[in-house]
Amino acid sequence: MSDERLIYLPLGGAGEIGMNCYVYGYGKPGEERLLVVDMGVAFPDMDTTPGVDIILPDITWLKENKNRIEGLVITHAHEDHVGAVGHTFEHLGLPIYARAFTSNIARHKLAEYGIEGQAVKTCSPWPEQVQIGPFKLGFLPISHSIPESSGLVIDTPAGRVIHTGDFKLDTQPLVGEAWDPELWGEVSKGGVKALICDSTNVFSPNPGRSEVTVGPAVEKLVAEAPNLVVATTFASNVARVRTLAEAGERAGRSIVLLGRAMRRMVEAAVETGVLDRFPTVVPVEDATSIPRENLMLLVTGSQGERRAASAQLSRGKFNGIELKEGDTFLFSSKTIPGNEKDVIRIMNALSEKGVDVVTDSMGDYHVSGHANRPDLETMQDVVQPQIVVPMHGEHRHLREHVKLSEQRNRQAVLAVNGMMIDLTGNAPKVAEYIETGRTYLDGSVQIGAMDGIVRDRIRMALNGHVVVTLIMDEDDEPLGEPWVDLMGLAETGSSHVPLTDVLEADLSQFIGRAGEKTLTDDDKLEEGLRRVVRQSCQNEIGKKPEVTVVVSRLS
Amino acid sequence: MSDERLIYLPLGGAGEIGMNCYVYGYGKPGEERLLVVDMGVAFPDMDTTPGVDIILPDITWLKENKNRIEGLVITHAHEDHVGAVGHTFEHLGLPIYARAFTSNIARHKLAEYGIEGQAVKTCSPWPEQVQIGPFKLGFLPISHSIPESSGLVIDTPAGRVIHTGDFKLDTQPLVGEAWDPELWGEVSKGGVKALICDSTNVFSPNPGRSEVTVGPAVEKLVAEAPNLVVATTFASNVARVRTLAEAGERAGRSIVLLGRAMRRMVEAAVETGVLDRFPTVVPVEDATSIPRENLMLLVTGSQGERRAASAQLSRGKFNGIELKEGDTFLFSSKTIPGNEKDVIRIMNALSEKGVDVVTDSMGDYHVSGHANRPDLETMQDVVQPQIVVPMHGEHRHLREHVKLSEQRNRQAVLAVNGMMIDLTGNAPKVAEYIETGRTYLDGSVQIGAMDGIVRDRIRMALNGHVVVTLIMDEDDEPLGEPWVDLMGLAETGSSHVPLTDVLEADLSQFIGRAGEKTLTDDDKLEEGLRRVVRQSCQNEIGKKPEVTVVVSRLS
Repeated sequence: MSDERLIYLPLGGAGEIGMNCYVYGYGKPGEERLLVVDMGVAFPDMDTTPGVDIILPDITWLKENKNRIEGLVITHAHEDHVGAVGHTFEHLGLPIYARAFTSNIARHKLAEYGIEGQAVKTCSPWPEQVQIGPFKLGFLPISHSIPESSGLVIDTPAGRVIHTGDFKLDTQPLVGEAWDPELWGEVSKGGVKALICDSTNVFSPNPGRSEVTVGPAVEKLVAEAPNLVVATTFASNVARVRTLAEAGERAGRSIVLLGRAMRRMVEAAVETGVLDRFPTVVPVEDATSIPRENLMLLVTGSQGERRAASAQLSRGKFNGIELKEGDTFLFSSKTIPGNEKDVIRIMNALSEKGVDVVTDSMGDYHVSGHANRPDLETMQDVVQPQIVVPMHGEHRHLREHVKLSEQRNRQAVLAVNGMMIDLTGNAPKVAEYIETGRTYLDGSVQIGAMDGIVRDRIRMALNGHVVVTLIMDEDDEPLGEPWVDLMGLAETGSSHVPLTDVLEADLSQFIGRAGEKTLTDDDKLEEGLRRVVRQSCQNEIGKKPEVTVVVSRLS
Repeated sequence: MSDERLIYLPLGGAGEIGMNCYVYGYGKPGEERLLVVDMGVAFPDMDTTPGVDIILPDITWLKENKNRIEGLVITHAHEDHVGAVGHTFEHLGLPIYARAFTSNIARHKLAEYGIEGQAVKTCSPWPEQVQIGPFKLGFLPISHSIPESSGLVIDTPAGRVIHTGDFKLDTQPLVGEAWDPELWGEVSKGGVKALICDSTNVFSPNPGRSEVTVGPAVEKLVAEAPNLVVATTFASNVARVRTLAEAGERAGRSIVLLGRAMRRMVEAAVETGVLDRFPTVVPVEDATSIPRENLMLLVTGSQGERRAASAQLSRGKFNGIELKEGDTFLFSSKTIPGNEKDVIRIMNALSEKGVDVVTDSMGDYHVSGHANRPDLETMQDVVQPQIVVPMHGEHRHLREHVKLSEQRNRQAVLAVNGMMIDLTGNAPKVAEYIETGRTYLDGSVQIGAMDGIVRDRIRMALNGHVVVTLIMDEDDEPLGEPWVDLMGLAETGSSHVPLTDVLEADLSQFIGRAGEKTLTDDDKLEEGLRRVVRQSCQNEIGKKPEVTVVVSRLS
């Protein structure tokens, strides 16, 4: 037994928030049988990933070790945990294990890629366990901002590991199972080798608040609103969606769900029985015939997503509904860092329509789905792990979580994406470094983050793009003058003549002076033309653009 | 007199935060003599203004009415109020009025454009007044996060207007004048026609905190820090910079200022006498010879600016200094919406170096420079204006400020950029709508926000760029095949052959089928080629790129 080992390897989610993908392995070094936990996505932004549709973990290492992988487990149905199952299935083809609600969502993701739903095996919660290779896996219910989020009990010959998944300590989550310290204590009492633990809210100093605390403020707001009420939150927060809907129902309002995700999540929750009751929903086509003061819309787009219902409603008529002076728009959500400007844009557009925007600035209309610092301490006290391994956080979160653990006299290890940790011995140690990264879904194609494609886009966005065309005749003499096209650049600069004229004159001059060595050598010629363009632009407009040179030779 | 009027026209800053520029006018309609208040900049971002250096107000209307403008007054030396004086001076050539510290900064801005400093007239504070056309102008001291911020008393034949500038109600601002309710009450007691008032913090429900409250926490932190301490804040917050420096001095640390703005602001404050004392500063060259635990750096870049000292220090060695495990980095600042990701990037880079990052998440190390909601109420109570005109805010701030005023039974008007308000009568009324917008400084050129230049850059960033080159011979027949260059696009798509090959084949096929009508008509030919590229790309890679077609005719 002593030559076998238990390893932990994050491929996504450790050193960033999003794109979760963790690997456990047991066996002889280099021959460990592997279990993948979560296959999530991250979201692109204009600063670093313009034009990209979605960000996926780099699964190169998994592909290379495909024959060693026993399965993929999904802890819960948030996009950053389940979002990439469809995009990666063809490469890995793994059986997928999840609880009912998560399975429902995962099957829809696979269906988008034409993959049959039986790839997903629905598992019951603890105490049921399923044997997957050398791992005996159990889904341990815990509260989060989505139904059926689960910690994982992973029993291995080297001991029991608990992977928390995303969680909060909520004894009244309204939908789904409550945090049950007795159950978690019971599971842990035989000794836990390692606790792999959510770190998102390690900087939040106060104990987390229960989902149940949101209800009264929402109910008051909806009851007192004089006109149409619109509320947005993450569609997957089914408990919140129901709280909002029930507040509407009690205020005598008909409920309309707007946005595909909003309908999909409620549907999945009903189908899988996690939602036992939900107010009657009215189709959006009927909304216009209902008096505004008797209507409430629950809509997608709490993060300012441009194509989601919130943004559409802020811009104008959407599905026949137009917001007006005196309407109320509630953001029952917090803004994820990076989305502030998009959310603020919507708030201002609503303000221009005279809509009263209500946010969670005072903490009345939203609670976080993650465990705060004292809750992380409670989790450690309940589980009493030999080793704490922080996950699900940026570097600063992981580091703080390690410090917190060490202050409490627990061993902890800071493992970022690509660091394979050997958990077998008494102390964790780094076994290996694996190359990791990100893959971009760009249109219908997956491209590597380091391919230079997105870098070129960013450069064109920052610097503009100049295309130079030159035709060389059979004698390697220029046929006519070089021709310039500009994209994303000022049309005139310091000399007050068109920039294309300046560039074409400078290029002609360069060509006129160029010797045979340059004119016959494509690389030299292109490099020379490029340099002229960049220098002339710098003089004229104070910018050095990207340059594409096309030399056509008639020979 | 009755045919003359008093107007207010915001050209920037009303409906946005940043780029402040307000106009007051008095005289016959269309012939009012004008006074411009502030000439600020806004900052670009990748989402909406990639590659742009700085955003300026659109001064077209001012240029058209140049002969009516009496002068430009600057309330305080923040970039969003003074930043554009250099960029716009050549177009307007106005005399500039400001207090000493602001003048010092403004002169440096003009000097960058080679403009002599005597364009700036340094004014003394109230009770001194200066006659500028029909306006009698006084600078009324008020507290803000920069020295010598001033409200403006603008006396006109139609009455007294008070323009608050940016302000907070701080009775202990440490540097510069305190909020003096007696003085403001005294000035207002003869009746104030209109209060044009800062709206930034209208959503902050608690009274603002004094600058003096920051000191104890900073002092404790710096005293207890075991190693090098770095602190960042806005350089212009001279009071804060001194608080930080004094905490360092008391802890026996040598103080180093890093970053041009940091040195410039302290220098200006000393030169103009607003800073009577400041700890001795050590040149950065000497820093490396000082033990780390006896050193404190005050650095620029609290907003995550990539070229500022904070970002440089987070990436590696900067000016010979490298941060290490156990160092402390204090953000004595708040993050402006939109800058979150840049700031977080620095925090994580510091975390990777083992640096302990301390932020203001608990409100210990920073206070806002703007008046909160109860402070705005206090201001109204002191000034007792006939009309409240909210400024310096996004639409949602202005609207809330109007609502707040009306709830307190005051007349208020929501005036956004371009709305000329007639303040002459008992009730404010909209006199006219002026076209306004933004001008971008792009490299060394000023371009219009609506010129399409930046739009093209955004499109290239989102969609990539394809260049098609085709040579047509003297008989209008294609000479060789169409040629394709890709920029920012995947090299292969669904058919697993190079995308350029697919595109060139499809283009050749199109050319082969095209009739004479298409081949002889540049527009038709280009449009046809463009359509083929977009459609083929859509099929291959699921994206429709930007396309530049270059047809060269040998005829």
